[in-house]
Amino acid sequence: MKLVIGNKRYSSWSLRGWLAIRQSGLAFDEVVIPMDTPEFAAAKADASLMPSGTVPVLWDGDVVVWESLAIIDWLADRVGRDVFWPKDDAARALARSIAAEMHAGFINLRRHCPMNTGQTYPAFALTPEVERDIGRIDALWREALHGFGGNGGPYLFGAFGAADIMYAPVVTRFHTYDVPLSDASEAYVNAVLAHPFMQDWYAGAEAEDWRLDRIEF
Amino acid sequence: MKLVIGNKRYSSWSLRGWLAIRQSGLAFDEVVIPMDTPEFAAAKADASLMPSGTVPVLWDGDVVVWESLAIIDWLADRVGRDVFWPKDDAARALARSIAAEMHAGFINLRRHCPMNTGQTYPAFALTPEVERDIGRIDALWREALHGFGGNGGPYLFGAFGAADIMYAPVVTRFHTYDVPLSDASEAYVNAVLAHPFMQDWYAGAEAEDWRLDRIEF
Repeated sequence: MKLVIGNKRYSSWSLRGWLAIRQSGLAFDEVVIPMDTPEFAAAKADASLMPSGTVPVLWDGDVVVWESLAIIDWLADRVGRDVFWPKDDAARALARSIAAEMHAGFINLRRHCPMNTGQTYPAFALTPEVERDIGRIDALWREALHGFGGNGGPYLFGAFGAADIMYAPVVTRFHTYDVPLSDASEAYVNAVLAHPFMQDWYAGAEAEDWRLDRIEF
Repeated sequence: MKLVIGNKRYSSWSLRGWLAIRQSGLAFDEVVIPMDTPEFAAAKADASLMPSGTVPVLWDGDVVVWESLAIIDWLADRVGRDVFWPKDDAARALARSIAAEMHAGFINLRRHCPMNTGQTYPAFALTPEVERDIGRIDALWREALHGFGGNGGPYLFGAFGAADIMYAPVVTRFHTYDVPLSDASEAYVNAVLAHPFMQDWYAGAEAEDWRLDRIEF
Protein backbone atom coordinates (compact mmCIF):
# COMPACT_ATOMS: atom_id res chain seq x y z
CA MET A 1 0.00 0.00 0.00
CA LYS A 2 1.15 3.50 -0.79
CA LEU A 3 -0.55 6.72 0.28
CA VAL A 4 0.20 9.97 -1.56
CA ILE A 5 -0.57 13.04 0.54
CA GLY A 6 0.10 16.77 0.74
CA ASN A 7 2.07 18.34 3.55
CA LYS A 8 0.63 17.49 6.93
CA ARG A 9 0.31 21.00 8.21
CA TYR A 10 -2.15 22.18 5.57
CA SER A 11 -3.72 19.24 3.76
CA SER A 12 -7.01 18.48 5.44
CA TRP A 13 -8.11 15.85 2.93
CA SER A 14 -4.75 14.12 3.26
CA LEU A 15 -5.33 13.81 6.99
CA ARG A 16 -8.54 11.88 6.32
CA GLY A 17 -6.89 9.39 3.97
CA TRP A 18 -3.95 8.96 6.32
CA LEU A 19 -6.16 8.33 9.36
CA ALA A 20 -8.15 5.82 7.32
CA ILE A 21 -5.12 3.75 6.47
CA ARG A 22 -3.83 3.96 10.04
CA GLN A 23 -7.26 2.81 11.23
CA SER A 24 -7.13 -0.15 8.83
CA GLY A 25 -3.95 -1.38 10.51
CA LEU A 26 -2.48 -2.23 7.09
CA ALA A 27 1.17 -1.41 6.40
CA PHE A 28 1.78 1.45 3.97
CA ASP A 29 4.41 3.72 2.50
CA GLU A 30 3.77 7.42 2.82
CA VAL A 31 4.62 9.81 -0.04
CA VAL A 32 4.41 13.44 1.07
CA ILE A 33 4.34 16.11 -1.63
CA PRO A 34 4.24 19.69 -0.32
CA MET A 35 1.42 21.64 -1.91
CA ASP A 36 1.88 24.84 -3.93
CA THR A 37 5.31 23.71 -5.09
CA PRO A 38 6.69 22.78 -8.54
CA GLU A 39 7.02 19.24 -7.13
CA PHE A 40 3.27 19.12 -6.47
CA ALA A 41 2.51 20.46 -9.95
CA ALA A 42 4.69 17.71 -11.44
CA ALA A 43 2.99 15.05 -9.31
CA LYS A 44 -0.44 16.27 -10.46
CA ALA A 45 0.61 15.64 -14.04
CA ASP A 46 1.90 12.13 -13.21
CA ALA A 47 -0.92 9.61 -13.58
CA SER A 48 1.20 6.95 -11.87
CA LEU A 49 1.13 9.10 -8.73
CA MET A 50 -1.99 11.31 -8.68
CA PRO A 51 -4.38 10.23 -11.45
CA SER A 52 -7.11 12.50 -10.06
CA GLY A 53 -4.80 15.48 -9.65
CA THR A 54 -5.76 15.57 -5.97
CA VAL A 55 -4.54 14.15 -2.68
CA PRO A 56 -4.97 11.78 -0.94
CA VAL A 57 -4.44 8.89 -3.34
CA LEU A 58 -4.23 5.30 -2.14
CA TRP A 59 -2.38 2.75 -4.24
CA ASP A 60 -3.24 -0.82 -3.30
CA GLY A 61 -0.89 -2.66 -5.62
CA ASP A 62 -1.96 -1.55 -9.10
CA VAL A 63 -5.37 -0.45 -7.88
CA VAL A 64 -5.84 3.26 -7.26
CA VAL A 65 -8.44 4.91 -5.05
CA TRP A 66 -8.93 8.63 -4.43
CA GLU A 67 -11.37 10.79 -2.42
CA SER A 68 -11.25 10.17 1.31
CA LEU A 69 -14.70 8.60 1.57
CA ALA A 70 -13.89 6.16 -1.22
CA ILE A 71 -10.58 5.33 0.48
CA ILE A 72 -12.41 4.61 3.74
CA ASP A 73 -14.84 2.22 2.06
CA TRP A 74 -12.14 0.59 0.00
CA LEU A 75 -10.26 -0.15 3.22
CA ALA A 76 -13.49 -1.24 4.92
CA ASP A 77 -13.89 -3.81 2.13
CA ARG A 78 -10.34 -4.98 2.89
CA VAL A 79 -10.39 -5.19 6.70
CA GLY A 80 -14.08 -5.35 7.59
CA ARG A 81 -16.84 -2.79 7.80
CA ASP A 82 -16.86 -2.81 11.60
CA VAL A 83 -13.35 -1.32 11.73
CA PHE A 84 -14.79 1.90 10.30
CA TRP A 85 -18.57 1.94 10.79
CA PRO A 86 -20.77 1.27 13.84
CA LYS A 87 -22.39 -2.17 14.02
CA ASP A 88 -25.66 -0.76 15.34
CA ASP A 89 -27.98 0.08 12.44
CA ALA A 90 -29.22 3.46 13.67
CA ALA A 91 -25.72 4.51 14.63
CA ARG A 92 -24.34 3.43 11.27
CA ALA A 93 -27.10 5.34 9.46
CA LEU A 94 -26.14 8.51 11.31
CA ALA A 95 -22.42 7.86 10.85
CA ARG A 96 -22.79 7.38 7.09
CA SER A 97 -25.05 10.44 6.79
CA ILE A 98 -22.79 12.83 8.67
CA ALA A 99 -19.65 11.49 6.98
CA ALA A 100 -21.24 12.14 3.57
CA GLU A 101 -22.49 15.57 4.71
CA MET A 102 -18.91 16.44 5.65
CA HIS A 103 -17.59 15.13 2.35
CA ALA A 104 -19.72 17.58 0.37
CA GLY A 105 -20.41 20.39 2.79
CA PHE A 106 -19.38 23.06 5.27
CA ILE A 107 -17.71 25.04 2.54
CA ASN A 108 -17.81 28.33 4.46
CA LEU A 109 -15.89 26.86 7.39
CA ARG A 110 -13.41 25.21 5.05
CA ARG A 111 -12.73 28.46 3.16
CA HIS A 112 -12.65 30.79 6.14
CA CYS A 113 -10.65 28.56 8.48
CA PRO A 114 -8.07 26.60 6.48
CA MET A 115 -6.33 23.78 8.30
CA ASN A 116 -3.04 24.81 9.86
CA THR A 117 -1.82 22.49 12.59
CA GLY A 118 1.04 24.84 13.44
CA GLN A 119 -0.95 27.88 14.53
CA THR A 120 -3.63 29.03 16.91
CA TYR A 121 -5.62 32.23 16.57
CA PRO A 122 -7.31 33.11 19.88
CA ALA A 123 -10.80 34.59 19.59
CA PHE A 124 -10.66 34.37 15.81
CA ALA A 125 -13.47 36.37 14.15
CA LEU A 126 -16.12 34.22 12.47
CA THR A 127 -18.71 35.24 9.89
CA PRO A 128 -22.40 34.34 10.28
CA GLU A 129 -22.05 31.78 7.45
CA VAL A 130 -19.14 30.09 9.23
CA GLU A 131 -21.05 30.16 12.51
CA ARG A 132 -23.95 28.40 10.80
CA ASP A 133 -21.62 25.61 9.65
CA ILE A 134 -20.17 25.36 13.15
CA GLY A 135 -23.62 25.20 14.72
CA ARG A 136 -24.65 22.39 12.40
CA ILE A 137 -21.48 20.40 13.13
CA ASP A 138 -21.86 20.92 16.87
CA ALA A 139 -25.45 19.65 16.67
CA LEU A 140 -24.48 16.58 14.62
CA TRP A 141 -21.68 15.75 17.04
CA ARG A 142 -23.96 16.08 20.05
CA GLU A 143 -26.51 13.83 18.39
CA ALA A 144 -23.84 11.21 17.70
CA LEU A 145 -22.23 11.52 21.14
CA HIS A 146 -25.49 11.33 23.06
CA GLY A 147 -27.81 9.55 20.69
CA PHE A 148 -26.52 6.06 21.23
CA GLY A 149 -26.54 5.63 25.01
CA GLY A 150 -23.86 3.31 26.22
CA ASN A 151 -21.58 3.88 23.24
CA GLY A 152 -19.03 4.66 25.93
CA GLY A 153 -17.32 7.45 23.99
CA PRO A 154 -15.09 9.28 23.74
CA TYR A 155 -15.50 9.29 19.93
CA LEU A 156 -18.64 10.04 17.92
CA PHE A 157 -19.92 6.48 17.99
CA GLY A 158 -17.84 5.05 20.83
CA ALA A 159 -14.76 3.59 19.17
CA PHE A 160 -12.75 5.70 16.69
CA GLY A 161 -14.09 5.25 13.17
CA ALA A 162 -15.02 6.68 9.78
CA ALA A 163 -17.10 9.59 11.10
CA ASP A 164 -14.24 10.70 13.35
CA ILE A 165 -11.84 10.42 10.42
CA MET A 166 -14.06 12.58 8.20
CA TYR A 167 -14.40 15.28 10.89
CA ALA A 168 -10.76 15.18 12.11
CA PRO A 169 -9.68 18.21 10.02
CA VAL A 170 -12.65 20.13 11.47
CA VAL A 171 -11.39 19.21 14.94
CA THR A 172 -8.03 20.76 14.11
CA ARG A 173 -9.75 23.88 12.73
CA PHE A 174 -11.86 24.30 15.86
CA HIS A 175 -8.65 24.08 17.88
CA THR A 176 -6.65 26.41 15.62
CA TYR A 177 -9.34 29.07 15.37
CA ASP A 178 -10.42 28.86 19.02
CA VAL A 179 -14.02 28.12 18.09
CA PRO A 180 -16.56 28.19 20.94
CA LEU A 181 -18.45 24.88 21.19
CA SER A 182 -20.84 23.03 23.45
CA ASP A 183 -19.22 21.17 26.35
CA ALA A 184 -19.85 17.82 24.68
CA SER A 185 -18.20 18.91 21.43
CA GLU A 186 -15.32 20.56 23.29
CA ALA A 187 -14.62 17.28 25.10
CA TYR A 188 -14.80 15.47 21.77
CA VAL A 189 -12.28 17.86 20.19
CA ASN A 190 -9.88 17.18 23.03
CA ALA A 191 -10.38 13.42 22.76
CA VAL A 192 -9.61 13.45 19.03
CA LEU A 193 -6.54 15.69 19.46
CA ALA A 194 -5.27 13.22 22.09
CA HIS A 195 -5.75 10.18 19.84
CA PRO A 196 -2.38 8.52 19.06
CA PHE A 197 -2.92 8.82 15.30
CA MET A 198 -3.56 12.55 15.62
CA GLN A 199 -0.54 12.97 17.88
CA ASP A 200 1.55 11.25 15.19
CA TRP A 201 0.13 13.51 12.48
CA TYR A 202 0.83 16.69 14.47
CA ALA A 203 4.38 15.48 15.19
CA GLY A 204 4.84 14.80 11.48
CA ALA A 205 3.53 18.26 10.60
CA GLU A 206 5.86 19.85 13.14
CA ALA A 207 8.83 17.99 11.67
CA GLU A 208 8.09 19.10 8.10
CA ASP A 209 10.63 21.28 6.39
CA TRP A 210 7.83 23.51 5.27
CA ARG A 211 7.43 26.06 8.01
CA LEU A 212 6.70 29.26 6.20
CA ASP A 213 3.18 30.20 7.17
CA ARG A 214 1.29 30.86 3.97
CA ILE A 215 -1.75 32.13 5.76
CA GLU A 216 -1.89 35.63 7.20
CA PHE A 217 -4.87 37.23 8.90
CA MET B 1 -39.27 2.50 3.73
CA LYS B 2 -40.12 6.10 2.97
CA LEU B 3 -38.20 8.43 0.69
CA VAL B 4 -38.64 12.19 0.98
CA ILE B 5 -37.66 14.03 -2.19
CA GLY B 6 -38.03 17.39 -3.92
CA ASN B 7 -39.91 17.81 -7.17
CA LYS B 8 -38.62 15.53 -9.87
CA ARG B 9 -38.05 18.14 -12.49
CA TYR B 10 -35.44 20.09 -10.54
CA SER B 11 -34.07 18.06 -7.64
CA SER B 12 -30.88 16.41 -8.80
CA TRP B 13 -29.96 14.98 -5.40
CA SER B 14 -33.45 13.54 -5.04
CA LEU B 15 -32.97 11.66 -8.29
CA ARG B 16 -29.92 9.93 -6.82
CA GLY B 17 -31.72 8.80 -3.67
CA TRP B 18 -34.73 7.67 -5.68
CA LEU B 19 -32.64 5.66 -8.15
CA ALA B 20 -30.82 4.06 -5.23
CA ILE B 21 -34.00 2.79 -3.64
CA ARG B 22 -35.32 1.61 -7.00
CA GLN B 23 -32.02 -0.20 -7.54
CA SER B 24 -32.34 -1.89 -4.13
CA GLY B 25 -35.64 -3.43 -5.20
CA LEU B 26 -37.13 -2.66 -1.77
CA ALA B 27 -40.69 -1.34 -1.55
CA PHE B 28 -41.00 2.32 -0.54
CA ASP B 29 -43.42 5.19 -0.17
CA GLU B 30 -42.49 8.37 -2.00
CA VAL B 31 -43.10 11.77 -0.41
CA VAL B 32 -42.59 14.59 -2.92
CA ILE B 33 -42.26 18.13 -1.57
CA PRO B 34 -41.91 20.81 -4.24
CA MET B 35 -38.90 23.02 -3.56
CA ASP B 36 -39.06 26.79 -3.05
CA THR B 37 -42.56 26.51 -1.59
CA PRO B 38 -43.94 27.22 1.91
CA GLU B 39 -44.58 23.46 2.11
CA PHE B 40 -40.87 22.77 1.62
CA ALA B 41 -39.93 25.37 4.24
CA ALA B 42 -42.31 23.69 6.69
CA ALA B 43 -40.87 20.24 5.88
CA LYS B 44 -37.33 21.54 6.47
CA ALA B 45 -38.37 22.54 9.98
CA ASP B 46 -39.94 19.13 10.66
CA ALA B 47 -37.34 16.76 12.09
CA SER B 48 -39.70 13.82 11.60
CA LEU B 49 -39.53 14.46 7.85
CA MET B 50 -36.22 16.17 6.95
CA PRO B 51 -33.87 16.14 9.95
CA SER B 52 -31.00 17.41 7.80
CA GLY B 53 -33.08 20.14 6.14
CA THR B 54 -32.17 18.60 2.77
CA VAL B 55 -33.56 16.05 0.34
CA PRO B 56 -33.36 13.15 -0.25
CA VAL B 57 -34.09 11.57 3.12
CA LEU B 58 -34.60 7.84 3.53
CA TRP B 59 -36.61 6.55 6.47
CA ASP B 60 -36.05 2.86 7.12
CA GLY B 61 -38.51 2.34 9.96
CA ASP B 62 -37.30 4.70 12.68
CA VAL B 63 -33.82 4.92 11.18
CA VAL B 64 -33.07 7.97 9.07
CA VAL B 65 -30.38 8.35 6.41
CA TRP B 66 -29.62 11.42 4.33
CA GLU B 67 -27.03 12.34 1.64
CA SER B 68 -27.26 10.24 -1.51
CA LEU B 69 -23.96 8.43 -1.05
CA ALA B 70 -24.93 7.45 2.50
CA ILE B 71 -28.32 6.25 1.24
CA ILE B 72 -26.61 4.10 -1.39
CA ASP B 73 -24.35 2.44 1.17
CA TRP B 74 -27.14 2.04 3.68
CA LEU B 75 -29.13 0.17 1.02
CA ALA B 76 -26.03 -1.79 -0.01
CA ASP B 77 -25.82 -2.99 3.59
CA ARG B 78 -29.45 -4.07 3.33
CA VAL B 79 -29.48 -5.84 -0.04
CA GLY B 80 -25.82 -6.66 -0.70
CA ARG B 81 -22.87 -4.64 -1.92
CA ASP B 82 -22.93 -6.24 -5.37
CA VAL B 83 -26.31 -4.66 -6.18
CA PHE B 84 -24.56 -1.26 -6.18
CA TRP B 85 -20.82 -1.73 -6.58
CA PRO B 86 -18.73 -3.79 -9.04
CA LYS B 87 -17.41 -7.11 -7.75
CA ASP B 88 -14.06 -6.65 -9.47
CA ASP B 89 -11.63 -4.87 -7.14
CA ALA B 90 -10.13 -2.43 -9.63
CA ALA B 91 -13.56 -1.58 -11.03
CA ARG B 92 -14.96 -1.06 -7.53
CA ALA B 93 -12.02 1.18 -6.63
CA LEU B 94 -12.76 3.39 -9.64
CA ALA B 95 -16.51 3.29 -9.02
CA ARG B 96 -16.11 4.38 -5.40
CA SER B 97 -13.60 7.09 -6.35
CA ILE B 98 -15.69 8.67 -9.10
CA ALA B 99 -18.89 8.41 -7.05
CA ALA B 100 -17.20 10.28 -4.19
CA GLU B 101 -15.69 12.81 -6.63
CA MET B 102 -19.21 13.51 -7.92
CA HIS B 103 -20.57 13.80 -4.39
CA ALA B 104 -18.21 16.66 -3.58
CA GLY B 105 -17.35 18.14 -6.93
CA PHE B 106 -18.20 19.62 -10.32
CA ILE B 107 -19.65 22.69 -8.68
CA ASN B 108 -19.31 24.85 -11.80
CA LEU B 109 -21.40 22.47 -13.88
CA ARG B 110 -23.96 22.15 -11.12
CA ARG B 111 -24.35 25.93 -10.76
CA HIS B 112 -24.29 26.80 -14.44
CA CYS B 113 -26.50 23.98 -15.68
CA PRO B 114 -29.19 23.25 -13.10
CA MET B 115 -31.20 20.09 -13.61
CA ASN B 116 -34.43 20.64 -15.52
CA THR B 117 -35.88 17.51 -17.05
CA GLY B 118 -38.55 19.52 -18.85
CA GLN B 119 -36.34 21.66 -21.06
CA THR B 120 -33.62 21.49 -23.66
CA TYR B 121 -31.35 24.36 -24.66
CA PRO B 122 -29.66 23.63 -27.99
CA ALA B 123 -26.05 24.82 -28.28
CA PHE B 124 -26.15 26.20 -24.76
CA ALA B 125 -23.16 28.47 -24.03
CA LEU B 126 -20.66 27.01 -21.56
CA THR B 127 -17.96 28.79 -19.59
CA PRO B 128 -14.36 27.52 -19.49
CA GLU B 129 -14.86 26.39 -15.87
CA VAL B 130 -17.92 24.37 -16.85
CA GLU B 131 -16.08 22.91 -19.82
CA ARG B 132 -13.31 21.81 -17.47
CA ASP B 133 -15.83 19.93 -15.32
CA ILE B 134 -17.36 18.37 -18.42
CA GLY B 135 -13.96 17.29 -19.72
CA ARG B 136 -13.12 15.63 -16.43
CA ILE B 137 -16.45 13.78 -16.31
CA ASP B 138 -16.10 12.66 -19.92
CA ALA B 139 -12.61 11.31 -19.15
CA LEU B 140 -13.79 9.46 -16.03
CA TRP B 141 -16.69 7.93 -17.94
CA ARG B 142 -14.45 6.79 -20.77
CA GLU B 143 -12.08 5.23 -18.28
CA ALA B 144 -14.93 3.35 -16.62
CA LEU B 145 -16.57 2.34 -19.91
CA HIS B 146 -13.36 1.11 -21.52
CA GLY B 147 -11.17 0.29 -18.57
CA PHE B 148 -12.74 -3.01 -17.66
CA GLY B 149 -12.83 -4.90 -20.93
CA GLY B 150 -15.71 -7.26 -21.11
CA ASN B 151 -17.87 -5.40 -18.65
CA GLY B 152 -20.42 -5.59 -21.43
CA GLY B 153 -21.88 -2.12 -20.88
CA PRO B 154 -23.92 -0.17 -21.45
CA TYR B 155 -23.45 1.37 -18.00
CA LEU B 156 -20.23 2.63 -16.43
CA PHE B 157 -19.24 -0.73 -14.99
CA GLY B 158 -21.48 -3.03 -17.00
CA ALA B 159 -24.63 -3.39 -14.93
CA PHE B 160 -26.42 -0.30 -13.61
CA GLY B 161 -25.05 0.65 -10.18
CA ALA B 162 -23.95 3.26 -7.69
CA ALA B 163 -21.66 5.17 -10.05
CA ASP B 164 -24.46 5.49 -12.62
CA ILE B 165 -26.82 6.64 -9.88
CA MET B 166 -24.39 9.34 -8.73
CA TYR B 167 -23.89 10.64 -12.29
CA ALA B 168 -27.53 10.35 -13.42
CA PRO B 169 -28.32 14.05 -12.80
CA VAL B 170 -25.25 14.93 -14.86
CA VAL B 171 -26.63 12.77 -17.65
CA THR B 172 -29.86 14.81 -17.60
CA ARG B 173 -27.86 18.05 -17.62
CA PHE B 174 -25.77 16.96 -20.60
CA HIS B 175 -29.03 16.18 -22.40
CA THR B 176 -30.79 19.40 -21.35
CA TYR B 177 -27.88 21.70 -22.19
CA ASP B 178 -26.89 19.90 -25.39
CA VAL B 179 -23.34 19.32 -24.19
CA PRO B 180 -20.85 17.99 -26.76
CA LEU B 181 -19.25 14.74 -25.57
CA SER B 182 -17.06 11.93 -26.81
CA ASP B 183 -18.88 9.18 -28.69
CA ALA B 184 -18.50 6.78 -25.77
CA SER B 185 -19.98 9.25 -23.31
CA GLU B 186 -22.75 10.21 -25.73
CA ALA B 187 -23.75 6.55 -26.01
CA TYR B 188 -23.66 6.26 -22.25
CA VAL B 189 -25.95 9.30 -21.85
CA ASN B 190 -28.45 7.71 -24.21
CA ALA B 191 -28.26 4.38 -22.38
CA VAL B 192 -28.96 6.01 -19.01
CA LEU B 193 -31.83 8.11 -20.39
CA ALA B 194 -33.36 4.90 -21.77
CA HIS B 195 -33.07 3.02 -18.46
CA PRO B 196 -36.56 2.11 -17.14
CA PHE B 197 -35.94 3.89 -13.82
CA MET B 198 -35.01 7.10 -15.65
CA GLN B 199 -38.02 6.80 -17.93
CA ASP B 200 -40.19 6.53 -14.82
CA TRP B 201 -38.54 9.58 -13.26
CA TYR B 202 -39.01 11.68 -16.40
CA ALA B 203 -42.66 10.59 -16.60
CA GLY B 204 -43.11 11.55 -12.96
CA ALA B 205 -41.50 14.93 -13.59
CA GLU B 206 -43.74 15.50 -16.58
CA ALA B 207 -46.84 14.68 -14.53
CA GLU B 208 -45.95 17.09 -11.74
CA ASP B 209 -48.28 19.98 -11.12
CA TRP B 210 -45.27 22.24 -11.00
CA ARG B 211 -44.73 23.39 -14.50
CA LEU B 212 -43.72 26.99 -14.17
CA ASP B 213 -40.16 27.14 -15.39
CA ARG B 214 -38.14 28.87 -12.74
CA ILE B 215 -35.03 29.02 -14.84
CA GLU B 216 -34.66 31.59 -17.58
CA PHE B 217 -31.60 32.11 -19.74
